[in-house]
Amino acid sequence: MTQPQFQPDFAKAGGLITAVTVDVPTGEVLMVAYMNEESFRLTLETGKAHYWSRSRQKLWKKGESSGNMQDLVEMRMDCDLDAVVLRVRQTGPACHEGFHSCFYRTVAEDGSLVEIAEREMTPEQMYGGAK
Amino acid sequence: MTQPQFQPDFAKAGGLITAVTVDVPTGEVLMVAYMNEESFRLTLETGKAHYWSRSRQKLWKKGESSGNMQDLVEMRMDCDLDAVVLRVRQTGPACHEGFHSCFYRTVAEDGSLVEIAEREMTPEQMYGGAK
Repeated sequence: MTQPQFQPDFAKAGGLITAVTVDVPTGEVLMVAYMNEESFRLTLETGKAHYWSRSRQKLWKKGESSGNMQDLVEMRMDCDLDAVVLRVRQTGPACHEGFHSCFYRTVAEDGSLVEIAEREMTPEQMYGGAK
Repeated sequence: MTQPQFQPDFAKAGGLITAVTVDVPTGEVLMVAYMNEESFRLTLETGKAHYWSRSRQKLWKKGESSGNMQDLVEMRMDCDLDAVVLRVRQTGPACHEGFHSCFYRTVAEDGSLVEIAEREMTPEQMYGGAK
């Protein structure tokens, strides 16, 4: 139930700050998403990661469809107060494609994309075919 | 001199994708920045991190003023091809405030911002007073 005593800079990108979500304890970057003021506040109040979905243009509690929630361990702010690192304990895969991290592909020397992780679930297993 | 064999989704946020820059070998998130097509291409071609500065509205080779460059070790793409993780070897502080990482403050239980890192350089040392 933390209430922020500072004001993030929501003015820069259509009212959104950028969130980088990092796995505890591995430190792996799980995903990048965006927060408006409401999702920022709810994340601190509830201890569950909330974002603003740019594609769906709505508040998005992570895991609301898949059950794969993120429990907030720590929040860090950047120098300009327009980006945030969320350190979380991730339930299940963070990525809607069923990988633990959304960053499951590396750019190889020939410039192609190569998968570097194992898929943990299929999207059908995550969303029951009703993504 | 890598040429990408895939097309990032530059359409979503004014022609920009989001870049999360991560320290090798610690894995710490150093900064969040943005890339247009040119900065993305130059990063792969030169092996030095390039971004698009939203505040200055110009191409920005990281370290061009401070000398604190970022040597690219690996680039990872996310599921939607609109965010990228750059794993880099950072010379000097990544943050223009003189901290190793821009995320040098944590949100304490009372909602205040608390510094959790030591300043490595002053901005004057980094930019010689001509930031």
